[in-house]
Amino acid sequence: MASQFGEQLRVSIFGESHGNGIGALIEGLPAGEAIDFDRLMRFMERRQGGRNALSTARKEPDRPEFVSGVLDGITTGFPVCIQIANTNTRSGDYNNLALKPRPSHADFTAYMKWHGHADMRGGGHFSGRLTAPLCAAGGIALQILERRGIYVGAHLSSIGSVQDDAFPMQPESVLFEQIAAKEFPVLSDKKGAMMQQEILAAREALDSVGGTIACMITGMPAGLGDPMFDGIENRLARVLFGIPAVKGVEFGDGFALSGMRGSAANDPFGTDLQGNIVTKTNRNGGILGGITTGMPVRFRVGIKPTPSIAQKQQTVTLPEGNETEIEIKGRHDPCIAQRAVPVVEAAAALTALDVLLCDGRF
Amino acid sequence: MASQFGEQLRVSIFGESHGNGIGALIEGLPAGEAIDFDRLMRFMERRQGGRNALSTARKEPDRPEFVSGVLDGITTGFPVCIQIANTNTRSGDYNNLALKPRPSHADFTAYMKWHGHADMRGGGHFSGRLTAPLCAAGGIALQILERRGIYVGAHLSSIGSVQDDAFPMQPESVLFEQIAAKEFPVLSDKKGAMMQQEILAAREALDSVGGTIACMITGMPAGLGDPMFDGIENRLARVLFGIPAVKGVEFGDGFALSGMRGSAANDPFGTDLQGNIVTKTNRNGGILGGITTGMPVRFRVGIKPTPSIAQKQQTVTLPEGNETEIEIKGRHDPCIAQRAVPVVEAAAALTALDVLLCDGRF
Amino acid sequence: MASQFGEQLRVSIFGESHGNGIGALIEGLPAGEAIDFDRLMRFMERRQGGRNALSTARKEPDRPEFVSGVLDGITTGFPVCIQIANTNTRSGDYNNLALKPRPSHADFTAYMKWHGHADMRGGGHFSGRLTAPLCAAGGIALQILERRGIYVGAHLSSIGSVQDDAFPMQPESVLFEQIAAKEFPVLSDKKGAMMQQEILAAREALDSVGGTIACMITGMPAGLGDPMFDGIENRLARVLFGIPAVKGVEFGDGFALSGMRGSAANDPFGTDLQGNIVTKTNRNGGILGGITTGMPVRFRVGIKPTPSIAQKQQTVTLPEGNETEIEIKGRHDPCIAQRAVPVVEAAAALTALDVLLCDGRF
Amino acid sequence: MASQFGEQLRVSIFGESHGNGIGALIEGLPAGEAIDFDRLMRFMERRQGGRNALSTARKEPDRPEFVSGVLDGITTGFPVCIQIANTNTRSGDYNNLALKPRPSHADFTAYMKWHGHADMRGGGHFSGRLTAPLCAAGGIALQILERRGIYVGAHLSSIGSVQDDAFPMQPESVLFEQIAAKEFPVLSDKKGAMMQQEILAAREALDSVGGTIACMITGMPAGLGDPMFDGIENRLARVLFGIPAVKGVEFGDGFALSGMRGSAANDPFGTDLQGNIVTKTNRNGGILGGITTGMPVRFRVGIKPTPSIAQKQQTVTLPEGNETEIEIKGRHDPCIAQRAVPVVEAAAALTALDVLLCDGRF
Repeated sequence: MASQFGEQLRVSIFGESHGNGIGALIEGLPAGEAIDFDRLMRFMERRQGGRNALSTARKEPDRPEFVSGVLDGITTGFPVCIQIANTNTRSGDYNNLALKPRPSHADFTAYMKWHGHADMRGGGHFSGRLTAPLCAAGGIALQILERRGIYVGAHLSSIGSVQDDAFPMQPESVLFEQIAAKEFPVLSDKKGAMMQQEILAAREALDSVGGTIACMITGMPAGLGDPMFDGIENRLARVLFGIPAVKGVEFGDGFALSGMRGSAANDPFGTDLQGNIVTKTNRNGGILGGITTGMPVRFRVGIKPTPSIAQKQQTVTLPEGNETEIEIKGRHDPCIAQRAVPVVEAAAALTALDVLLCDGRF
Repeated sequence: MASQFGEQLRVSIFGESHGNGIGALIEGLPAGEAIDFDRLMRFMERRQGGRNALSTARKEPDRPEFVSGVLDGITTGFPVCIQIANTNTRSGDYNNLALKPRPSHADFTAYMKWHGHADMRGGGHFSGRLTAPLCAAGGIALQILERRGIYVGAHLSSIGSVQDDAFPMQPESVLFEQIAAKEFPVLSDKKGAMMQQEILAAREALDSVGGTIACMITGMPAGLGDPMFDGIENRLARVLFGIPAVKGVEFGDGFALSGMRGSAANDPFGTDLQGNIVTKTNRNGGILGGITTGMPVRFRVGIKPTPSIAQKQQTVTLPEGNETEIEIKGRHDPCIAQRAVPVVEAAAALTALDVLLCDGRF
Repeated sequence: MASQFGEQLRVSIFGESHGNGIGALIEGLPAGEAIDFDRLMRFMERRQGGRNALSTARKEPDRPEFVSGVLDGITTGFPVCIQIANTNTRSGDYNNLALKPRPSHADFTAYMKWHGHADMRGGGHFSGRLTAPLCAAGGIALQILERRGIYVGAHLSSIGSVQDDAFPMQPESVLFEQIAAKEFPVLSDKKGAMMQQEILAAREALDSVGGTIACMITGMPAGLGDPMFDGIENRLARVLFGIPAVKGVEFGDGFALSGMRGSAANDPFGTDLQGNIVTKTNRNGGILGGITTGMPVRFRVGIKPTPSIAQKQQTVTLPEGNETEIEIKGRHDPCIAQRAVPVVEAAAALTALDVLLCDGRF
Repeated sequence: MASQFGEQLRVSIFGESHGNGIGALIEGLPAGEAIDFDRLMRFMERRQGGRNALSTARKEPDRPEFVSGVLDGITTGFPVCIQIANTNTRSGDYNNLALKPRPSHADFTAYMKWHGHADMRGGGHFSGRLTAPLCAAGGIALQILERRGIYVGAHLSSIGSVQDDAFPMQPESVLFEQIAAKEFPVLSDKKGAMMQQEILAAREALDSVGGTIACMITGMPAGLGDPMFDGIENRLARVLFGIPAVKGVEFGDGFALSGMRGSAANDPFGTDLQGNIVTKTNRNGGILGGITTGMPVRFRVGIKPTPSIAQKQQTVTLPEGNETEIEIKGRHDPCIAQRAVPVVEAAAALTALDVLLCDGRF
């Protein structure tokens, strides 16, 4: 329901952009897992704005506080509640939006669903800020997975019309680390520079721009996942569409497969140098029938342009429905895809860990 | 878990391609709903092969039998169990596949997950045949929705590289009926003829071809769905990725939004002639923050080419992992996208009905 | 929801007393488990009436048919659908009840919930007959558990005011077999004879009588279950209250503990001859904090007298609510506790297997 | 899973007795509901110790802080996170227990489940202290229910062998208020005085004593709940067994029905002075087939004596399993049943509200 996902690892997200705080409640984390807090902070910093001209103005770092479930840096097996304080909120900027829904934001739909009671200051519970606790939870999952040889990495595969290079078929974890260490998470820094130009150009035009993110999970053994509605694809998609602004999800070559013939789209089976069964290509993204093949799980998400733009836009008053205009003030990223990269990794890590737990691998 | 989805309306699919039978168990259907059995049969016939050269050889019609939950054609409120007999199975065709996994099928992953115990004759529980009970359940949901002014329609939006025209922004239900009545479910029969050429060409080349399906749900009131992980997008995606061969799902303009600027991607609010609040465009597919805007819900799925092709393919023996080749015999559709159109409608209808029930609209 | 329970092992019950059939859908059964069909039939026969003067007239044996999920007597890992035909239904007997709800049956509440649409002939979905598919599912679980050294047994601990002897603290599985083989499932046949007198006396008085059932699960390792709301007690209670006529559930010494002092109620820890940690007594029923101690899980359920009695009773007409009388005809057990013994075992076995699967023990 | 319950209203409890804090996350609360904070505090005070010689030494009041989901004292529709600080913890008292499990506590089972990682200081996540956030959540539910004419009340029905009087069949809400206002929540103050003697006697004997609690929910309309495994009984039982020390749950006359005949146990239907259909007696506790009859829902829970007693007890060392003795120091209630009364009310209110939400009554 709503702000929760997962089966054996259950993650619930709470809080609003301008409320007292935000956080995550995680049930089902295995006991005895050490949490490297510094690494977790570095992971979370990747989703924060303020690093450069591409993002909103500098914010204080989001510092997750463990309310429960962790003792001396080790998970206890009890539910882990993580809380992050809301500081640096400037509600004044949003006051005039109260009754004028911002186009392509959730203001209008939230108003209709909760009859005006929802606290939508700064986007409320729908704010991109709510991806911070998701990253906190995901950052812990990443550490647990890595101890089992499972790695997650993502990069900006496109901004506007500029495409990054593609991941190799079997990337090493060091590649994921290299990308994660970059200020702009791409494979090709040359393409990255062009992407940044797209973002800056949009910003200058008082506009925003969208992008796509490609993600891989390596090291997942074959035979994980469930048929039909609980396959790896179903579970990942359910979580990924929970990230604000995601409007498309595809696995392997995804929509491109729809334009192909079977002889080109099928992944032949064979063996690698160690005699393991592999597929010679991985157009299906490491998943067949919802179940892992042992090849890297591979998917891509499409992220729409930031709906908050500085240009004047058409809207209506609520609840009357009189046509009017709106000018959105305040701090906004001209492109959110950049900051969504670690969020996608977090979603992937939490889903992968849940799948492993459902399979009884702990 | 696995072969089940839904919250207040819960659908479970069971059976295997060559087992004793297949079926669906539906919990949570409202009581007192009449089921027009003839209409249900007509809906189910749309997903069956054998109509023309584009599909596999003629089969007997799938006839759903109501084991429980329906009395004199009216739902009683108790769980509805629907069963469909398996006739016309020719297991011999598949015997040689037992230990040679077919590329891009679930044979290998099922073997790894269930250690060789899964009954994979004809694809087992992963077979496209299992979409028959999904359609039976969905066909009932469609009838219940229509009584509330909610309509679901889909068309083949592309086959290979050939694109159909697009749905209008606010289609009438009669358009959905017209497409459903066609042997080849497209808007433009001219484009449809070209698509059929693509399919026949693939067939002649002992190959297959993929396609995409566009679907709309009209009449959904604004304010339905839940934030984050239980929005309309999350729920629909979870079910849609349960349809065999679906590798991508996008909402509204989907991945195309990723290449756009915010000023072009945002949907301005305004009012229609009756004074209702609407969006002037619907690039977000009738969903903002996971919640309905009142505009048609609009999405597209990408379907990979049928993995069963008559060409020789590389594979391995199980469990040894020796490289070998496979030639798949038996009856296969050169394109399954055509038959998946009503399946997508069924998935959409069941999800929409569940969302309405969760909202307490019955 | 409703007619389903379980987390990793999910059991759904469907059907009505006088409908086309009844059955169970089981998701999550481990693959590769042999089902001894003859043993399953013997288990199911224990819940059937017609053996003696204590039960309703002879019926045909309920024969479960496997629609899916089982190949050559071995589970495949796919959902298992079990169906049992409804034969020997005599709806005429119930015709006059249609609009006169039987006291202490679900006729009235079903009418209110489903506005008269529920098919309540013979009790509909609430009929004791629906425990047949529960036993079919449970009988399979029992066989899987026994292969892991886990055994489930129950006996009639009381009928009316007559009490059976108590289980020993650590019963051998052979004791469970001995009781299961008896026509009247008690430890002390002498007490059993007195209980049967209670039942016959009730029958002669055109009345019915209630009873209690004590059940144990042996061989469960320590450390299984979850805190708070998903402990062994919570899960068992949720399923046990799904058995018709169960009105009380207690664990260990249960309500008797409420009248005791801590020094008498606490179970001291110690070691057995093999050096394993045990409790010297087992007043807590093998569960502390919802988690198994390694001692036998022990509980008792209270079953009310069969509400169907031949005496004239006060009721009302529906929907008018005019006061009237009712005389219930047809075949009815003067005591259902006897037949509920294997049903309680089935519920216990399914819950125990689910707990093991959640713990990743397969 | 674990520390969560509910379907449309989902409550998760987190925290440990001696950790940073405890709390509850509530998803699905209707929007627009005012929370009377002072009333909530008064409700929560009823479960706190320190009022008299019967309880542990005085503690600071538990003050729930709303982290999310409430704006200006009104629910917003977003997840409500409530946090309560842990103050006044004296871990030193428990140090010697670390490796010696206390009899009839969860120390041993938690050790086995989480391999020694669980933070069991003060009972950890199993501590009775964790009923504080349950009461915070339940206190909100009570306020929402009362606005719909639904009331919940409970009393101590017994301590040791002393019984309180019974609730009338149709109690007015003012009776619930009167009991709630008492320092010792009983109907008969004379019986209450005798109960208090039982508690004091146990305390003087360095011992503890158990009790039972009777609870009613009035005003629930007929037709609510689901058949089989999601009836009112199933749901309530699942939550009630989540309250520490509860070992038995019964509905209506419960286990007493097992000793009765049907003619005495059945509740005849009739009409009241307003012409509404009622049952003339309510031995089934307002529930038939899991669904409400419209009569008060009535149940009783059995609570074992506080396992913490000052007497020397037998235990073992962990993980070696050497037999040894333990003396439990620190502050302990000689009877916890008294403080569990509002906890039972909270569990009942949250379950009732969930059932109403599932039925679409909001």
